[in-house]
Amino acid sequence: MSSNVNSILIIGLGMIGSSIALASKSKGITVYGFDIDNVVVNDAIKKDIIDRDAGTIEEISSQESAKNIDLIILAVPPKQTLDVLNELDGLWNTSITITDTSSVKNHIKIEDVSNIVLSHPVAGSDKSGIHAADKNLFINKKNVLCDPFNAEKEHLEKVENFWKNALQMRTAFMSVREHDLVFAITSHLPHLISYALIDSIRLSPTEVGDNAGGGLKEFIRLSGSNPEMWRDIFMLNRVDLIKALAGMQVSINNLLELITETKQIPDIFSHLEILKKELDEIKSFKEDKF
Amino acid sequence: MSSNVNSILIIGLGMIGSSIALASKSKGITVYGFDIDNVVVNDAIKKDIIDRDAGTIEEISSQESAKNIDLIILAVPPKQTLDVLNELDGLWNTSITITDTSSVKNHIKIEDVSNIVLSHPVAGSDKSGIHAADKNLFINKKNVLCDPFNAEKEHLEKVENFWKNALQMRTAFMSVREHDLVFAITSHLPHLISYALIDSIRLSPTEVGDNAGGGLKEFIRLSGSNPEMWRDIFMLNRVDLIKALAGMQVSINNLLELITETKQIPDIFSHLEILKKELDEIKSFKEDKF
Repeated sequence: MSSNVNSILIIGLGMIGSSIALASKSKGITVYGFDIDNVVVNDAIKKDIIDRDAGTIEEISSQESAKNIDLIILAVPPKQTLDVLNELDGLWNTSITITDTSSVKNHIKIEDVSNIVLSHPVAGSDKSGIHAADKNLFINKKNVLCDPFNAEKEHLEKVENFWKNALQMRTAFMSVREHDLVFAITSHLPHLISYALIDSIRLSPTEVGDNAGGGLKEFIRLSGSNPEMWRDIFMLNRVDLIKALAGMQVSINNLLELITETKQIPDIFSHLEILKKELDEIKSFKEDKF
Repeated sequence: MSSNVNSILIIGLGMIGSSIALASKSKGITVYGFDIDNVVVNDAIKKDIIDRDAGTIEEISSQESAKNIDLIILAVPPKQTLDVLNELDGLWNTSITITDTSSVKNHIKIEDVSNIVLSHPVAGSDKSGIHAADKNLFINKKNVLCDPFNAEKEHLEKVENFWKNALQMRTAFMSVREHDLVFAITSHLPHLISYALIDSIRLSPTEVGDNAGGGLKEFIRLSGSNPEMWRDIFMLNRVDLIKALAGMQVSINNLLELITETKQIPDIFSHLEILKKELDEIKSFKEDKF
């Protein structure tokens, strides 16, 4: 088995799946596609986003329509990712490599399988669907790989090579535990907060009209992301999400104590000075890192 | 007294002040400038951001150096705005119009003055200082005017004309009460939340490395804004800010109850369905409005 990837099969032709398709085709890789909605598959062929219809999941799993496929990539919402992996059991422990794109990993539990490697291409958009396909979406972005099933070396290499060479991504390995906690903090919490902020404006008796500064527009953009995907992420990663939220509440309370001058601070300082100092420190934190 | 503006004096040559200067000069308006830091004034003249050094605040207030000025614009942090307005008492009730750019208004209390109109050009950046001057910063942006001192009609017209014609902004009047509450919701709370989120990452025992998705980068950008300005905004508008925060906490708790399946919902629905429905509704709220 070679770690080269000449043909892939993408399951789920939303924004992520169709963007992977476009990027792969631009590198000369043959792309088979499946979507639960057959209209989307036909659209993808017509728009030259995929090369061929992959048939049904049953046909794929029985290897009828998946002959010569090197790599199968699931690009469905997080909860469905596990369901589809289970439906593909006819392909477990074959030379075909299987990977995914889910932003949460802890629920993906399968036993005795050596050809599944988990991937999280860290790229997205508030847009969704095949019309938002973007062949450059992944270039230079990070892809976090997890290997909870101890996949065989060839499968690991094939997945890593694909993301690096075909999609021009940077790859790094993490444990599922670390992955879910880190992305709870850096991604899932910011999205939860954005949904909550926009919800509070929606429910507020104060009519804010068109008085939104630049800051709010970013929150609106984040809360405009695919609701099905975010529902799954929030539900499946709720333990780590609530840990991250608890940390943020501590920081909110600390700032509030300074703002309302209820925090005990040494006499030689003023609340104004300390608040300014804290905002300065937050501002300079990792400014250049991300 | 004409409502035409041929010459202005800008007090405070940070990002906002120097951007107003550049935009005004491009319309043929003569720009005098003052900054507490004389190096900045010299830099502004050298870079052709202002035409002339306006001298000291005392010289300005005594009309020594403010002859022929049509409009004075304060572009200093919110707390200093009131201080400087008081220092300019030699110009109160003259034909020179005075306005400001503060994002909070409730602390600006002056009696028996008829030539001060408050302005809030709703435009900003995470950058600060004269090097961030941008002549196009204000084009098509909104400017909210408040008239708590019942200024004379000519002064009101002069300020409105200036923002509309010289800076190409849209203007609207609001009461100070309404202004501070609306911007607590749409601007001050998003910034507080951004500072708190980044602070919680800073203090977290979890090393997040370079694993920041697009969402977090916006929060980092917001929390990189001018700390002195944001300290003043948080302190001066704390009552409305806490009201806005309380509203957001209700929305966070509502989402958490769905995510953790602790909320009572009718048997015919599932938490998954209701959470998806709520996220859908939040997503579609005012999507096109802002």
